[in-house]
Amino acid sequence: MSDTRMTKTLDIAAIYEPVYADLVRVRSTLKGLSEVQTFPLLNEVLDHMVDLGGKQVRPAITLLASRFHPCAPESPILMAAAVELLHIATLVHDDTIDKATLRRGRPTVSNTWGKDVAVLAGDYVFAKSATLVCDTNNVRVIRGFAETIMALSSGELREYVSTFDAEQTREQYWRRIGDKTASLFATAAESGAVLSGAPEKHVQALREFGRTLGMAFQVFDDLLDFEGDEAVVGKPVGSDIMQGVMTLPTILYREQHPQATVTAAFADRENTAKLQQAIAEVRASSALAESRRIAEDLCNQSRQALRDLPDIPAKRSLLALTDYVVQRDR
Amino acid sequence: MSDTRMTKTLDIAAIYEPVYADLVRVRSTLKGLSEVQTFPLLNEVLDHMVDLGGKQVRPAITLLASRFHPCAPESPILMAAAVELLHIATLVHDDTIDKATLRRGRPTVSNTWGKDVAVLAGDYVFAKSATLVCDTNNVRVIRGFAETIMALSSGELREYVSTFDAEQTREQYWRRIGDKTASLFATAAESGAVLSGAPEKHVQALREFGRTLGMAFQVFDDLLDFEGDEAVVGKPVGSDIMQGVMTLPTILYREQHPQATVTAAFADRENTAKLQQAIAEVRASSALAESRRIAEDLCNQSRQALRDLPDIPAKRSLLALTDYVVQRDR
Repeated sequence: MSDTRMTKTLDIAAIYEPVYADLVRVRSTLKGLSEVQTFPLLNEVLDHMVDLGGKQVRPAITLLASRFHPCAPESPILMAAAVELLHIATLVHDDTIDKATLRRGRPTVSNTWGKDVAVLAGDYVFAKSATLVCDTNNVRVIRGFAETIMALSSGELREYVSTFDAEQTREQYWRRIGDKTASLFATAAESGAVLSGAPEKHVQALREFGRTLGMAFQVFDDLLDFEGDEAVVGKPVGSDIMQGVMTLPTILYREQHPQATVTAAFADRENTAKLQQAIAEVRASSALAESRRIAEDLCNQSRQALRDLPDIPAKRSLLALTDYVVQRDR
Repeated sequence: MSDTRMTKTLDIAAIYEPVYADLVRVRSTLKGLSEVQTFPLLNEVLDHMVDLGGKQVRPAITLLASRFHPCAPESPILMAAAVELLHIATLVHDDTIDKATLRRGRPTVSNTWGKDVAVLAGDYVFAKSATLVCDTNNVRVIRGFAETIMALSSGELREYVSTFDAEQTREQYWRRIGDKTASLFATAAESGAVLSGAPEKHVQALREFGRTLGMAFQVFDDLLDFEGDEAVVGKPVGSDIMQGVMTLPTILYREQHPQATVTAAFADRENTAKLQQAIAEVRASSALAESRRIAEDLCNQSRQALRDLPDIPAKRSLLALTDYVVQRDR
């Protein structure tokens, strides 16, 4: 297993190669944020958030998307840092609401400092990310960023209010993950393109790339919840169903099997055995393979979106990223 | 009592007279926000928030501050709506953290829809307020707005982490209320001035007006917690001490009386009788009169800040607002 993970790490490093130096600057921008504060608690919380690491897929997309037209690197670097910081802020509030205790193997902010501190520190980080975008001086990009925060919080809210509702449709699922995940991928790509001064046709192509890749990313994430190795994914198999979240595999299974156990299980949510039975049913069904096929289609759409862009190293990296999403183990 | 309140209502209407028509447009901008959503729950929550009303002091300051130089009214109206919406968003998160059940006599968002919905809907409204500012197309004002959100959440966080700490100093109090209250008053005034195209000297004068008025506003609010009529203020006298919040009167009293009961009361916070004794001590002391004197000084500074601005109706309204703050009953 450690071999596989090593390979993945190498893969992603190779993909990021064209923007590696700028990603290092994104990282130091993020690390530098806590130093300018004079409020020790906020420093600690910021350090804790930024130290979480992660694969930096979103900032890499911003940087890669800025490479199709010559531009000074400063604005895309600021934007990439803002995109990553916004992602971090959403994780802080999401973990607070989900009552998650661990994130990437470390205690969550709400687990460490309590829910109230997590809400306020999350607000602070949302606003801090917006100031980084303001430093690009580009109102179109700033507005898009604010709208993305609206989409992200709407998406989370949609998920929250629909828990333990087995009647959800595919359309509702697409809407929800479009808001909660794809919106930030789309903005990451679009803003990199806008800041590079790309023509509108390229901006829209890169936005569509980001949007469809984000959708695929979320579908694979939801698949992994059924298929993943608990030791690697870091949470029990089927945790979405256990928490009442209907994802694509469950929705597809229920479309084909109106009598699926999930309906009864959600109506009787304290009954762990019934929830486990619902998980087993989906796992044993063709819904997983079908979900994978749909996600691969989304990756194809993502690749297609780039067809008119010049064949430069950044394009090859973006295309490789769609493969990485398909094969990632977490 | 209802006579007094009626007089207050008339007073404030007279003060707002120069910008009355634009305040109506601010109100309809806010009311219109929910209509453009297609997410019924968010509509409901937005309507609930906006319906709370309030005295609209902050948007009035933005509009009045924009009147010293000729400009189209659209940008100041957008900004004023954003300022009020930001204020509303902070109330939603603050009430969630304070576990408040009522706000202006109506159930809070967290009380109505639960804490988790309040966090996410608050995030949404923060971002929505930022999009209104983006519509002004003025990056300076947009950046100032994002920094204000940082200040507001820092201030709330400072208050949260300092509860039941009797060792707080005046300096810490000024810092805290500067962040949690005065920052938005300062931004309200500054951004109105910037959007009107005022010269930097006038922008800074109006910012200083807003900042000092905001400080005075908060000191009076904290005084009212000791002096107010429970029926009018809507919460029990001394609720700050009961919740472990040290405000100016308590800090001043403790400066003069190192043996003040509040220290022992905070160390033994379940002992309601001791907390009540601490409240009674502060109420019976000269600390209230001294706090009032300090707040009046701040109002004087506020008036002084405007000395070089032309004597137009908007200036007379801003000056009258400093008197209104002194005499307001809630």
